[in-house]
Amino acid sequence: MTSKITPAVRAAIEAAVGAPHVFDDPEKAADYGHDEFSLPEIARVPDLVVRPGATEEVAAVLRLANEHGVPVTPRGGATGLCGGCVPVHGGIVLSLERMDRVLEVDADNQMAVTEAGVRLSDFVRAVEAAGLYFPPHPGDESAMMGGLVATNAGGSRAVKYGTIRNYVRGLELVTAAGDVLRLGGKLEKSSTGYNLMHLVVGSEGTLGVVTKVVLHLKARPGLLRSLVVPFEALEPALETVPLIMKRGIVPLAVEFLEVEPIAITEEHIGKTWPTKLGKTHLLVILDAPTEEEIDRLSQATAEVCCGKGAIDVFIADTPSKQDDVLAIRSKIYDAIKAGTVEVLDIAVPRAEVAGHVRFVREVAAKYDIWLPTFGHAADGNVHTHIMKVRCEAGRMAPVPESVWRPKTEAVRTELFRDCRARGGVISGEHGIGLVKKPYLPLVLDERQIALMRAIRRAFDPRGIMNPGKVFD
Amino acid sequence: MTSKITPAVRAAIEAAVGAPHVFDDPEKAADYGHDEFSLPEIARVPDLVVRPGATEEVAAVLRLANEHGVPVTPRGGATGLCGGCVPVHGGIVLSLERMDRVLEVDADNQMAVTEAGVRLSDFVRAVEAAGLYFPPHPGDESAMMGGLVATNAGGSRAVKYGTIRNYVRGLELVTAAGDVLRLGGKLEKSSTGYNLMHLVVGSEGTLGVVTKVVLHLKARPGLLRSLVVPFEALEPALETVPLIMKRGIVPLAVEFLEVEPIAITEEHIGKTWPTKLGKTHLLVILDAPTEEEIDRLSQATAEVCCGKGAIDVFIADTPSKQDDVLAIRSKIYDAIKAGTVEVLDIAVPRAEVAGHVRFVREVAAKYDIWLPTFGHAADGNVHTHIMKVRCEAGRMAPVPESVWRPKTEAVRTELFRDCRARGGVISGEHGIGLVKKPYLPLVLDERQIALMRAIRRAFDPRGIMNPGKVFD
Repeated sequence: MTSKITPAVRAAIEAAVGAPHVFDDPEKAADYGHDEFSLPEIARVPDLVVRPGATEEVAAVLRLANEHGVPVTPRGGATGLCGGCVPVHGGIVLSLERMDRVLEVDADNQMAVTEAGVRLSDFVRAVEAAGLYFPPHPGDESAMMGGLVATNAGGSRAVKYGTIRNYVRGLELVTAAGDVLRLGGKLEKSSTGYNLMHLVVGSEGTLGVVTKVVLHLKARPGLLRSLVVPFEALEPALETVPLIMKRGIVPLAVEFLEVEPIAITEEHIGKTWPTKLGKTHLLVILDAPTEEEIDRLSQATAEVCCGKGAIDVFIADTPSKQDDVLAIRSKIYDAIKAGTVEVLDIAVPRAEVAGHVRFVREVAAKYDIWLPTFGHAADGNVHTHIMKVRCEAGRMAPVPESVWRPKTEAVRTELFRDCRARGGVISGEHGIGLVKKPYLPLVLDERQIALMRAIRRAFDPRGIMNPGKVFD
Repeated sequence: MTSKITPAVRAAIEAAVGAPHVFDDPEKAADYGHDEFSLPEIARVPDLVVRPGATEEVAAVLRLANEHGVPVTPRGGATGLCGGCVPVHGGIVLSLERMDRVLEVDADNQMAVTEAGVRLSDFVRAVEAAGLYFPPHPGDESAMMGGLVATNAGGSRAVKYGTIRNYVRGLELVTAAGDVLRLGGKLEKSSTGYNLMHLVVGSEGTLGVVTKVVLHLKARPGLLRSLVVPFEALEPALETVPLIMKRGIVPLAVEFLEVEPIAITEEHIGKTWPTKLGKTHLLVILDAPTEEEIDRLSQATAEVCCGKGAIDVFIADTPSKQDDVLAIRSKIYDAIKAGTVEVLDIAVPRAEVAGHVRFVREVAAKYDIWLPTFGHAADGNVHTHIMKVRCEAGRMAPVPESVWRPKTEAVRTELFRDCRARGGVISGEHGIGLVKKPYLPLVLDERQIALMRAIRRAFDPRGIMNPGKVFD
């Protein structure tokens, strides 16, 4: 594929979108050439950045790109961790940032209609202002709604409320040919032909550009309470999680954490975690409509934890304690980011989390590399961080690149193989993008990838949509 | 496509599946030529009925059929209402009835693995015997699990728990070429390539044969309570539904009913509905973990209903009253089936239900036809029954075929057009099958259907899988 954008093509794009929203100045364009993946070598400056302001403009740009065989890489908040919005084949980066309006919060149907470029934080604000509730909470609130759909983002609340997929009811999708498709609607049920909407969710911008999303909402949330539960060892902590679920408790979130990253984060943001005891902590977040019910759930959760040898159970029951706990949890990645090469995103069956994390520790010891590992225990979604630093006395200490770099590939491959052996997948919520693409055949057989390839061709015969991503 | 099954092909199928499970005796085979759709003219006796006992046998049959261009129509419990399992092009009906084992109820992961030919009633029994809970409840418990997946079945509990799609975590699918694909797994999260599993859910046997299903389970259910709420008129009853949801109550089910079908059903099964008051009733089913919580929800629901002018609120709070109410609701279709031509399955946004049902009544008056209408009010899923009888003094009275038959097509088309105008779809949970196929272009534009066609071709290049269904 050529990524050559002729002066005539550029002029036509400028006519469609407005000249101020089309640029190729390398300094400005470089900002559009990467996401949050740490290694700069995957970045690529786009030939042209285009920022359409409406669906028809997106359609016009795609029609031109398709006609001239120019690659188009859609871009939302660029908070991805696997290079999904890097324009590896050059061409156009199509940024949705100007399509930033929440179009409707429909209280009667409990649905919202939003443009793709709205940030999660702004979307949540608009929904809550209307007295409603959007339960999913992928970690980074600066993510944009279209990107959340494109990756089927998850977050810690998936255990109770499911991933973004569970909330998507309708999509507006512009295909490579510039056709505008309206999939689904404000509907709770549909068995009317193949569900193209669910196919697009998680397709990472390879089947078209999501321009609008219809999302299911819930009524105002209930009360929240966080329990921090320290354990001496990994296994009993993780083995507690299926027991909580079996007891009939469905927490809003169940996170497992190691003490070292917590300590680094406390220092990083100047807040205090409720306890220094133990080695592995569970953070159990409960929600319920009444005080009585949340008391009952807290009590039952504490009983299960103590029965598995928890050292103690700390309850963050005031808003300020609650905020501190949640702030620390949400900032761990920020705190250790400078030392992180890559955040893995393995998902395994819930009961396999303990075994997988034990294996991660064996690999860490074998390769003498720091692999802090935490994540969404009840969803089976484990974020192992491959680090380029050591943890010494609660601080990150540098390791020479010649030491860490050769280890990363071996570590990744060993962990992905363990994931596969446990019936898992290499991405639970981040997507495959560019960085995990070589590993997709480890967990999907070639016949499945061949079907995906045929589907991609059906949506995008010339292969202009986010080429080089997910699979070739 | 030829549906000719040569003696050599038949011998090869018998060798794969066992001769006793392959037959073409017209009397026996006729049982495999229809589903629950009422009009006998859509039935067709298959050329051959094949009842494989294992995935490898399904694969062998499909490989042979594919090689020889023989149509294959998969068949589960045949409880469908739109001819989805009718072998319109002849060939093989592949019945999953012998694949009737629940393979595993995994309490630690809260997942079940079942063969496709297990009936819903048997599946629920196995899950509950293990102390777990499968919330979705499509009406007919003799449906088979593979068919529930193929149609994305819904039922009354979708308002709280979603449709079958929300519970599917993995599928084993045999494609037309006889390849066995394992999609998903015991996983709560996955963003690992296109989600072929979600594409197969609701594809009505046109992308392959579902042989096994991995399903998400919940812990033991809570307490149930049913409220029967009579209203004098349709509008206030239906307008109450969004208000209940806005109050933050998420009932297990919210059904709306008309008094005539209730009276016929009371007589049909010899049980008594709690009240004869009013014209339109809401049946609100609540579930909660504790008595306190269910009291709170009942109270709040009753307040909302009374605020909208409900005549009274009857609470079925003993198991026997509860059973009577649920039995009557679940048997309405049975009771009026003899007089029913077709059950429509329109889904509209929740707040459009009142308007759509009002339109149904106008159409009933215009064409002088009885159109009893009830369904899942909070899901927006409206089951209008096109009748070939009148309701006179609480009984069904015959109408000559020359009178009712010419009206059905006009009624269907008018209601589908109203559905489209309200942003709805022509099937919420039954599927398109054969009977609704001509109407699919009313709600999906040609470009969407073209994409579906290309996807179908990718899975099934020779077009042997359930040909003649959903779209051409």
